[in-house]
Amino acid sequence: MAYRETEKMRQRKAAVRQKITDCTYRCVAEGGFRNAKVTRIARMADVATGTIYRHFDSKEDLFAEIFRQATQHEVNKVADALAPPGDARERLERALRRFAERALEGPVMAWSLIAEPVDPKVEKERLTYRKAYADLFEQAIREGIEEGCIPDQNTRQSSTCLVGAVSESLVGPLSPSQTGQTTTDKTDNDPLVDTIIRFCIQGLTGTRR
Amino acid sequence: MAYRETEKMRQRKAAVRQKITDCTYRCVAEGGFRNAKVTRIARMADVATGTIYRHFDSKEDLFAEIFRQATQHEVNKVADALAPPGDARERLERALRRFAERALEGPVMAWSLIAEPVDPKVEKERLTYRKAYADLFEQAIREGIEEGCIPDQNTRQSSTCLVGAVSESLVGPLSPSQTGQTTTDKTDNDPLVDTIIRFCIQGLTGTRR
Repeated sequence: MAYRETEKMRQRKAAVRQKITDCTYRCVAEGGFRNAKVTRIARMADVATGTIYRHFDSKEDLFAEIFRQATQHEVNKVADALAPPGDARERLERALRRFAERALEGPVMAWSLIAEPVDPKVEKERLTYRKAYADLFEQAIREGIEEGCIPDQNTRQSSTCLVGAVSESLVGPLSPSQTGQTTTDKTDNDPLVDTIIRFCIQGLTGTRR
Repeated sequence: MAYRETEKMRQRKAAVRQKITDCTYRCVAEGGFRNAKVTRIARMADVATGTIYRHFDSKEDLFAEIFRQATQHEVNKVADALAPPGDARERLERALRRFAERALEGPVMAWSLIAEPVDPKVEKERLTYRKAYADLFEQAIREGIEEGCIPDQNTRQSSTCLVGAVSESLVGPLSPSQTGQTTTDKTDNDPLVDTIIRFCIQGLTGTRR
């Protein structure tokens, strides 16, 4: 009986925690980390502010958790895009395109993940995830070299160049002062994405695209 | 007489402020923002901790000031490298090389400026300065298109791709866990720098380098 009680409590606790992270996610997706106030999250989740701090040591820990969840979701999308069919070069192009297009379709969250000035605790997660993207790209570049569709090169360096080029070139278009325009018409994003992909693939292959 | 007194005080105040920023700069260059403690800065500058807060509203404001000073210095170096002689492509290559080489020669400060997780107030400066680099590169790309040595392209987008590629690809090599190796022998950095430059120039021109 004592065990069942504990199990029930555990489930309840997990449900509350889930509600807190869901509401935080929605707040960040709507207005970035800077607008995700704990009081507002508590109100949305229908819990006391103190309850949030029973589940997370600090606001920064909660934000780091949201950052991890949201970015892991994006990393998975890029990993999916890198899967066959296609040669490594085609797969890389598809993955870079997916990264850029998804960012432009959810510009507020994307800006928060890529560039929003955040607490060092959250920023640390950003460094970790940039490495996760680079690892994925590096694997594909290595495969491309083996397949012969990408010239031999330092795969580690090139993969980080890709991550830098694709994310930095999105910072401006995603920034809060700009997003009013970029989201109104999705087709407007095509030339922007094409430009980024061209730079990246040319950088990798040295062949005019 | 009253005026002379005020002038003297102003000078004294400016001298103390300068001493504080100099010591902070040295601390950051030695161990990053994370190791620049106010108590240590005060000891080095031979002032009371409270004196620091009479000159700067907060530690973050002091750090933002150091960030601006240090980065402006680097931006100027890149601007110098972009000046003639040479066509725009050569000048861009020289500027990217200078950026990378200077970073690898002062890896602790460079990592702090490029990637160290810092307070949002300092991170904001980082965004501003990345735009400053992009503006410089964009001007040179535009000149290269006019000269005919760089193909026509979206100069804004390509300039941010350059900033992203060159800075992101340095994050790993500069990171505190790595710098022990990269600084021991400067010539070891050559292949790394060459790889970055190759990616960037290929990205711009679509020509194998």
